[in-house]
Amino acid sequence: MTQDPLVIFTPSGKRGRVAAGTNVLAAARALGVDLDSVCGGRGICSKCQVSPSFGEFAKHGVTVLPGALSDWNAVEARYHEKRGLKPGRRLGCQAQILGDMVIDVPAESQVHRQVVRKDAAVRAMTMDPATRLYYVEVAEPDMHEPSGDFERLCTALSAQWEIGAVSARPSLLRRLQPVLRKGGWAVTVALFADHNGGPAEILEIWPGLHEAGLYGLAIDLGSTTIAAHLCDLDTGEVKGSAGIMNPQIRFGEDLMSRVSYVMMNPGGDVEMTHAVRDALNDLAIEIARDAAIDPGLIVETVVVCNPVMHHLLLGFDPVELGQAPFALVTSSALTLPAAELDLSAINPRAKTYILPCIAGHVGADAAAVSLSEEPEKSEDLVLIVDVGTNAELLLGNTTQVLACSSPTGPAFEGAQISSGQRAAPGAIERVEIDPVTKVPRFRVIGSDLWSDDPGFAAATAASGITGICGSGIIEAVAEMRIAGLLDASGLIGSADQTGTLLSEPEGRTHSYLLYDASAEGGPRISVTQGDIRAIQLAKSALYAGARLLMDEIGVDHVDRVVLAGAFGAHISPKHAMVLGMIPDVALDRVTSAGNAAGTGARIALCSRAARARVEAGVRQITKVETAIAPRFQEHFVAANAIPHASDPFAHLRAVVPLPEVSFNTGGDGGRGGRRRRRKA
Amino acid sequence: MTQDPLVIFTPSGKRGRVAAGTNVLAAARALGVDLDSVCGGRGICSKCQVSPSFGEFAKHGVTVLPGALSDWNAVEARYHEKRGLKPGRRLGCQAQILGDMVIDVPAESQVHRQVVRKDAAVRAMTMDPATRLYYVEVAEPDMHEPSGDFERLCTALSAQWEIGAVSARPSLLRRLQPVLRKGGWAVTVALFADHNGGPAEILEIWPGLHEAGLYGLAIDLGSTTIAAHLCDLDTGEVKGSAGIMNPQIRFGEDLMSRVSYVMMNPGGDVEMTHAVRDALNDLAIEIARDAAIDPGLIVETVVVCNPVMHHLLLGFDPVELGQAPFALVTSSALTLPAAELDLSAINPRAKTYILPCIAGHVGADAAAVSLSEEPEKSEDLVLIVDVGTNAELLLGNTTQVLACSSPTGPAFEGAQISSGQRAAPGAIERVEIDPVTKVPRFRVIGSDLWSDDPGFAAATAASGITGICGSGIIEAVAEMRIAGLLDASGLIGSADQTGTLLSEPEGRTHSYLLYDASAEGGPRISVTQGDIRAIQLAKSALYAGARLLMDEIGVDHVDRVVLAGAFGAHISPKHAMVLGMIPDVALDRVTSAGNAAGTGARIALCSRAARARVEAGVRQITKVETAIAPRFQEHFVAANAIPHASDPFAHLRAVVPLPEVSFNTGGDGGRGGRRRRRKA
Repeated sequence: MTQDPLVIFTPSGKRGRVAAGTNVLAAARALGVDLDSVCGGRGICSKCQVSPSFGEFAKHGVTVLPGALSDWNAVEARYHEKRGLKPGRRLGCQAQILGDMVIDVPAESQVHRQVVRKDAAVRAMTMDPATRLYYVEVAEPDMHEPSGDFERLCTALSAQWEIGAVSARPSLLRRLQPVLRKGGWAVTVALFADHNGGPAEILEIWPGLHEAGLYGLAIDLGSTTIAAHLCDLDTGEVKGSAGIMNPQIRFGEDLMSRVSYVMMNPGGDVEMTHAVRDALNDLAIEIARDAAIDPGLIVETVVVCNPVMHHLLLGFDPVELGQAPFALVTSSALTLPAAELDLSAINPRAKTYILPCIAGHVGADAAAVSLSEEPEKSEDLVLIVDVGTNAELLLGNTTQVLACSSPTGPAFEGAQISSGQRAAPGAIERVEIDPVTKVPRFRVIGSDLWSDDPGFAAATAASGITGICGSGIIEAVAEMRIAGLLDASGLIGSADQTGTLLSEPEGRTHSYLLYDASAEGGPRISVTQGDIRAIQLAKSALYAGARLLMDEIGVDHVDRVVLAGAFGAHISPKHAMVLGMIPDVALDRVTSAGNAAGTGARIALCSRAARARVEAGVRQITKVETAIAPRFQEHFVAANAIPHASDPFAHLRAVVPLPEVSFNTGGDGGRGGRRRRRKA
Repeated sequence: MTQDPLVIFTPSGKRGRVAAGTNVLAAARALGVDLDSVCGGRGICSKCQVSPSFGEFAKHGVTVLPGALSDWNAVEARYHEKRGLKPGRRLGCQAQILGDMVIDVPAESQVHRQVVRKDAAVRAMTMDPATRLYYVEVAEPDMHEPSGDFERLCTALSAQWEIGAVSARPSLLRRLQPVLRKGGWAVTVALFADHNGGPAEILEIWPGLHEAGLYGLAIDLGSTTIAAHLCDLDTGEVKGSAGIMNPQIRFGEDLMSRVSYVMMNPGGDVEMTHAVRDALNDLAIEIARDAAIDPGLIVETVVVCNPVMHHLLLGFDPVELGQAPFALVTSSALTLPAAELDLSAINPRAKTYILPCIAGHVGADAAAVSLSEEPEKSEDLVLIVDVGTNAELLLGNTTQVLACSSPTGPAFEGAQISSGQRAAPGAIERVEIDPVTKVPRFRVIGSDLWSDDPGFAAATAASGITGICGSGIIEAVAEMRIAGLLDASGLIGSADQTGTLLSEPEGRTHSYLLYDASAEGGPRISVTQGDIRAIQLAKSALYAGARLLMDEIGVDHVDRVVLAGAFGAHISPKHAMVLGMIPDVALDRVTSAGNAAGTGARIALCSRAARARVEAGVRQITKVETAIAPRFQEHFVAANAIPHASDPFAHLRAVVPLPEVSFNTGGDGGRGGRRRRRKA
């Protein structure tokens, strides 16, 4: 008796014998090989494409003879004629195994395909979205065996896809009968199945095979800016990104101002909830329009945010978060109908997943950063700093992870800065100052050219040069310090003291002129003494938070630092360290992770396993409350200088010479502003 | 060593030994005795009241000595002082067992208390509502162990009530923090736990112990009338009832007219959906106001209805129900947020349970009748007839149950009747006609007096005499037949033929005058030849449905008949049989079940087990489709006479002499009207 053919799948290496004539998709399922299919093997979705290999495979110990796979059948021929199959590709559901075979499953044919994260190239994420498409053929109604159309659809999902309990909301059921009849009793359903094993829910239904894709929105809801990525839920690809200012800014620039607004204005939370929900709808409409995608195809959203934004989005009064013991309404992750958040711009049955909060001051954004940066997998002690209006800090390694937040204020996002603006085209994002001439050059978002490069004016004509964003102000202040325009206490020198007329008097203090287009009616962009003070407050708060976590573990240095934040450009490690934002560490041990919270949101959007992981992970994180720690205040006060003296900054001084200048005239020198703000 | 005290609970008879000093509630729980508690044994809810017995109990083999139960403690004394304890009652959570005891658990202290159904005195229903109250004491927040208020509430529910996974919608979570703080960290929650073991959901929360009760609405949504009962979810007591006309009547009196309306008017289903949802809200507001109950305390609703109303309520286009194969969108029972049905008048998080449909023409109302009347438990063959605009028929016994519906039209509900009206105060509901004088007497809803009783005018002055309802018209037509005013073909005789001037000419036919207040500007209530024809059509359809079911089983008689329907008064069996509405059966084997569909709705409202039972039960029912059965048409045509000749009516003739009169003048005699309608 001849043996059944041996089939070996690559890259998984899974192998086994199947009866001759078995199709590749069936063989893959029998052997537990990850091969995609939406149509269930009917030769219409082409998701199960494979690449058969022929010849001798010493590594696998088999020789694949011509004829080991059936010839193209009519279904494949028709598919190729209509849509085209790449050379060497076959439809797994049609090609039959006749002899020993080696079959490669290309990445795009794997259900749980790996997606490389461009923003953190070392890691990949695995696609495992909560919502997937299933094509089913449904039995027609029979009045002698009466049953509902929905019940017959469920029977088909069970028989054709082994899917158990399925629910549907009335608004979906309302679409059922016309769609079933239009599709000739063949339909595609978008089925949401959460990571907790709850019953699946049909979110959408289309006649026949639905090929227009399925999308999700990953939303990083910051105090100052709201950023969103539109992701393809099949491939993980980012189809578009957009950001807008958080409209709640009109109620207060930082979180505590918004909490105060609610305290002073009963019902103020409701106003703010409406404002942020409206903004999310606007953002969804904009991002879908730019990507030319029907917003109704957006069936999932993931939101990460700090606790105050979390409460204001969900319609919870945030007042308890403004006072000890900082009790959250709920800290658990939430899976909700998006309609509960009035997200009417997307599919009416879309789901929203909100990551868990870690503590009253450490929110779902910190959880998202931990999901993206995985401190719990780091062998060395890593400090992860997510810079926003509220900074989230994580410190840890495989032994333990600690988290806290620090109220940096909005300066790092360009707010409370005289020429500040959100990171958007036209914003100055990089600054260099010649230490000899004291003349600045800069780059603006939307162009790779420096301001003294030929063609810069033309390249920036469309956006103009409109202001300075968070990363720009950080670089500007650090460069001013390096160039001797600023002393360690944070005072800007006069023209006499600095030797450049770009140092301009402004009241009792001075400012430094970065860009002047006022002659042409354009803006005049300066760094003022007030800007310096705002940055000093912000960086002191950030540094104090980092030190507090280090104190908790009992260390006085960290092995590496990851800078993250919703900045247009990444923060420059050198400049961050010149400012004294972060503890001393070798410059090559400081990396930039971009918008790690947003990346965490994208990971949670594309992967149910990641949702389970972050929910388990946050329970392992030790929370440190900055608001009640006396040492936080001590670190904060000690961290005012640029850089401050309480950290050796040995690594920094090895690469960046900092001039020993002092512009203190013995008077107030602008410090009063800081003192007043501290007391406020 | 002395033995632990023996405790015997009555009426359950459960017994066992418990350590001396155990309180009665703890002993009941340990022995599996059904003893209620909302506060969890804190001596504040008084739900666990018991009656200890003392003396010798030969039956139980124990003697209970004085001192076998602890004396009143301070908690009981305070409770008695504030609220009063009935003589002999103790608080189960306070009284401690010190010696052998016999303890009675009164009905009102049982969780699963039995509620006697007044409308069907033989059966009781067992309270097992999906939503129950739980009093919990929640840990205060601790910023050193940060957790959400909701998570601490869940922990408390788990620790104090052994309740597992619990969810809450944002609108409930929004209330959480102020209520917890107002209640000093003690709250009562209304927890909904469905019959399928899904995660429980907190529907409402109150500070401290909530004592204002919890309510549900059982809604019988008929084509013509909508009736609702407001039930106490703790006791099962009906706190109020109300009925209104279904506002969809303006779109068509019977179901098929409404389906036609949708076919002719795209979007017409949306109009009708809005109309019925508005009506349910109005009804809820009215019933809560009349019962002086906060509508926010209504946390559950149960709806029973026919398939077309089912679809129109849920927002589904009913057009498929108007044509073979009569496919339902969904036949399963549905548990939904009431907000999905726009039921905004009640608690915003209330749940709605809609009973399953049996087939495209046999709806959740028939399922509710089966739940109430339990044909599957009947040893003899029972025919259950639920009379409405669409009649639902169930025929069966322990061996099998069959169901069909029959399009009787709205005549039995007083519609399409010249002086017809909904069953409401002022409607004639009972009629007798003196066979000698041919003079009628009647009763109207709202008074027990007959129209010739002294005091009748005074008793009916408030409501007036406004028309005739369904049961009234049935009695009037049957009495006219018995009194010889009507012949077997359904013709009303002239004054000459009947010997009474109450027979009045009306065009080419005659009518019979029941009541005339026109001299005082009041109504003139007659039974017209058109009314007779409408009743003939309705009763022929009903009878044909019953015969069709009998044909399916292969029997030509049934053992008993149950008449049900949303009538103000019950249908008189004698009159129903004189009309030929139902097959021949001894009169004492015909009973009235009142609004059985509404009763089924109430049972499902009060019992999760009943929900599970009806869902399993409908799967065992054989559906018979009248619309495609040729024999239905044959039975319909043959059943036109009063009573018709195709049934022997031996039992009827034994008690009611029917005069052999014939008023056919050889002309059209009013039959044309019927013929035209049949063709329409």
